[in-house]
Amino acid sequence: MFAARNLRRRMGDSAEIELINAENYFVFQPLLPEVAAGQVTAPHAASPLRLLLKGVFVRKAVVHSIDFERQEITVFQGVQRRHTLVRYDHLVIALGQSSDLSMITGLPEHAMTLKTLEDGRLLRSHVIEKLEHAEITQLPEVKQQALTFTVIGAGFSGIETVGEMAEFIERSLKYYKNIDRSEIRIVVVEMADRVLAELPPALGTYARRKLEARGIEFQLSTGVESASGTHLVTSAGEWIGTRTIVATIGSAPSKLVRDLDLPLKAGKIQVDRSFRVPAHGNVWALGDCALIPMVDRPDAKSDYAPPTAQFAVREARHLAKCIDDAVNGKQLAPFVYSSKGALASLGARSGVGDIMGIKISGFPAWLIWRAYYVAFLPGMSTRFRVLMNWLLDAITPRNVVQLSKPPAPGARHVLYHAGDRIYEKGNRADGVYTVVSGAVEMITHDPETGKEQRRRLGPGQHFGMRLILGEDRRQATARAAEHTRVLVLDREEVLKIADGIDDFRRHFEERIERELGRHWDRGDGQPVKRVAAVD
Amino acid sequence: MFAARNLRRRMGDSAEIELINAENYFVFQPLLPEVAAGQVTAPHAASPLRLLLKGVFVRKAVVHSIDFERQEITVFQGVQRRHTLVRYDHLVIALGQSSDLSMITGLPEHAMTLKTLEDGRLLRSHVIEKLEHAEITQLPEVKQQALTFTVIGAGFSGIETVGEMAEFIERSLKYYKNIDRSEIRIVVVEMADRVLAELPPALGTYARRKLEARGIEFQLSTGVESASGTHLVTSAGEWIGTRTIVATIGSAPSKLVRDLDLPLKAGKIQVDRSFRVPAHGNVWALGDCALIPMVDRPDAKSDYAPPTAQFAVREARHLAKCIDDAVNGKQLAPFVYSSKGALASLGARSGVGDIMGIKISGFPAWLIWRAYYVAFLPGMSTRFRVLMNWLLDAITPRNVVQLSKPPAPGARHVLYHAGDRIYEKGNRADGVYTVVSGAVEMITHDPETGKEQRRRLGPGQHFGMRLILGEDRRQATARAAEHTRVLVLDREEVLKIADGIDDFRRHFEERIERELGRHWDRGDGQPVKRVAAVD
Repeated sequence: MFAARNLRRRMGDSAEIELINAENYFVFQPLLPEVAAGQVTAPHAASPLRLLLKGVFVRKAVVHSIDFERQEITVFQGVQRRHTLVRYDHLVIALGQSSDLSMITGLPEHAMTLKTLEDGRLLRSHVIEKLEHAEITQLPEVKQQALTFTVIGAGFSGIETVGEMAEFIERSLKYYKNIDRSEIRIVVVEMADRVLAELPPALGTYARRKLEARGIEFQLSTGVESASGTHLVTSAGEWIGTRTIVATIGSAPSKLVRDLDLPLKAGKIQVDRSFRVPAHGNVWALGDCALIPMVDRPDAKSDYAPPTAQFAVREARHLAKCIDDAVNGKQLAPFVYSSKGALASLGARSGVGDIMGIKISGFPAWLIWRAYYVAFLPGMSTRFRVLMNWLLDAITPRNVVQLSKPPAPGARHVLYHAGDRIYEKGNRADGVYTVVSGAVEMITHDPETGKEQRRRLGPGQHFGMRLILGEDRRQATARAAEHTRVLVLDREEVLKIADGIDDFRRHFEERIERELGRHWDRGDGQPVKRVAAVD
Repeated sequence: MFAARNLRRRMGDSAEIELINAENYFVFQPLLPEVAAGQVTAPHAASPLRLLLKGVFVRKAVVHSIDFERQEITVFQGVQRRHTLVRYDHLVIALGQSSDLSMITGLPEHAMTLKTLEDGRLLRSHVIEKLEHAEITQLPEVKQQALTFTVIGAGFSGIETVGEMAEFIERSLKYYKNIDRSEIRIVVVEMADRVLAELPPALGTYARRKLEARGIEFQLSTGVESASGTHLVTSAGEWIGTRTIVATIGSAPSKLVRDLDLPLKAGKIQVDRSFRVPAHGNVWALGDCALIPMVDRPDAKSDYAPPTAQFAVREARHLAKCIDDAVNGKQLAPFVYSSKGALASLGARSGVGDIMGIKISGFPAWLIWRAYYVAFLPGMSTRFRVLMNWLLDAITPRNVVQLSKPPAPGARHVLYHAGDRIYEKGNRADGVYTVVSGAVEMITHDPETGKEQRRRLGPGQHFGMRLILGEDRRQATARAAEHTRVLVLDREEVLKIADGIDDFRRHFEERIERELGRHWDRGDGQPVKRVAAVD
């Protein structure tokens, strides 16, 4: 966005500039923790690209592939599934970083991230859901899990997220009379031995002390072993019972960057000091997706531009000059910039920072943080909207309205640790379960003798099938006998698929008949329309 | 919410009052069109129940069933699937109305509604998506469908929705240089021969003229025959090519109201003039879910309280008095109230209304509409938030930020009219398709002779299976040969289910082998982990 704006400013009508983006808005990453904490509503935190980029053609589309030889980008746009080719003379790649949690078992299924505006909205909704549930549950274990919040990573993103999240919880507690402050546990797990490694050690210590004083627990030099729907297991061997895991680790190149046939190093596109990709005279990369050397013979990590907004904005300005110079056959100048410092908000009107070597902390740092980011926000109307939201937040109680969560996708995989309760007799049935790997133990009681009966299920076996027949209460208790992965299909899903795929319907018909002694399309279950088997 | 508030005010600590609601917020229905048009952001339009209801226990939970004999409500709360019993001495049912679109083929699958805050958010996002797509598509037919917006029903809800939607589109057009105003088509289809049947005819005519002057087309005395993903077919025989159908018709009792064993009439719970359900001395119903007689021998529709916010708020106040009187053994007074009039916003700073017999229209009516609803909004902070949003909207450009749509649920059914293109060769593959009913024609061209080949598929047959192997471009064109329902499964869905259910995996393995001559777990497709067949 900044690159397109600078190109437009510098080159005017002499160039046609097009921006291709999957979303039609721009959002400043540092605002996401505030969106997650409900200080700024999601639509107000973002700026419409079309408003910011007058004179630039904005194409809301997903890039499929890039042909560097033919100078062509293949995109898919809108509901339309037909591809469109976009030609270029110069191509700027500014795809940022994506996240990859697959290195830790259970994180992809059970951790939330904070990379997009939608992530911010979902995290806010999730935290309110936990408070609502803790308020009314009668089960101590459930309450404890609901009130335990974990954040993985204590860099800028982790610290700002935990600070805002803690403030949100603190300010909302007055609405939840059954929750005592002492029942809240907020834990940050970090591999390194200190927080905010990007800042001088004294400031990291200040931030940690400040957050500890607000009741946040730090587990430093600690990794994550695995995660499930109910636990986070640390490398120190602690099983933290929690329903909330926010992962701010695992930066990885986006899929498109990985698929491009460009030289990557540390997951980033290697460029020269003028952002040019070697061997391609007209391909440029900047921002978090590029590895930009700040010296001629880069060696240490500090020889490259850090992945901060401060640098990215300056890079964009210099890139516009480089492309203009390249078009006019001039010599390209290397990118030169030195950091003016770093700032982090700790929430609750406190911050910490290092500005041109001067260390600041507390309220002044927080105020400078806000002023700095408002000045950074592109577009007057977004600036105005964010200011209005801050004003509203300062003078009205924190808004605990919980907008609906998007419906869970039909089929999902859920992980359980050995011993985890999957459901209990009498529970509301929320899906038809299939063991994918591991083993599940079904516990029933003989109606006559009251004697406990146990049955073990392995991969491929189902449980909770009565839901298909319309019975919405569980008749047995299910526990994971070992580390187990299950497939969950909700009833609607099973009915829809059975409507179309004969073998799928027959599969369940047979098992319902054999295991439950019932007929699917009789009794109280919604009859499934039979489709003619054509083949 | 109003009933709980009034009960608390009247009975103080002498009663324990509990509100059970699926959401933790209250939203004024008349604000939803403004949310859909992005004038007010969703979280700012709603008031947290816990803030509004001090001294009332708020339980965010879903009601499963009610046992009137034992005076017990079974609820399910949070992620917890264990049921909880809530006992009552007096029960007030205020479930409002739900919508049922199943009377018209294709509406449940393809129409949007505007009953909840989430609906408002989704409609806004949907309209922006259509503008974004129209801006960049090269296909005239696709552009035309994207820019045609239809609303079914011209009552209060339909008129306010279309007015706000039109204003949103008008004000956003400046960002979309490739869209000409003349390409926008907004159609309202209404069974009755006039709009706003709730108001005097002259005002309905005024509203229609005003909206027609803004380019909105009215098809009165016209019903809807059927709908698909690309068309709305009217009873006049017109096939309107559109991607946007908003249904404001089809009011129906909620599932819970239908399941209760209470006397219903016209889909509403029959009560006496003091809101009491006959045969139950301690069960009360009010608002849109109740049929409240305003005279002793009700005969015409006008003898019942109309389903408006104005009446509901007054009913709540009177209900609190009735319950207090019943508890104290006093005689119950009948509910008496006469309407002070009606108001509708037409968007673009225009309105229409009838206040105590005085007809008003244009800007004054719009201003009174706003003042009236702000006064109605419960809670100072919500009032303040809505006012701030209005102010922001007045002084900044309309915000066209399109937040992500929730992910489509894994399995979905899609309807096509005969002749509809389902996809074309070269398209991006978005799912594995199965014919549920009807027939689909696959069109390919012989690679050598270029000769067209057609193949007809019936129920149970699949197309687009190459996606399972990871091929994301269509190799053939698919068209509906008749009125057809298809099941669409995205790739992730197929892989997840295949991971757990052996017969499902085998079903596709066989068909891929037979029809495509390929092996699922070889070649370029992601290999699927084989699970041991246990049974």
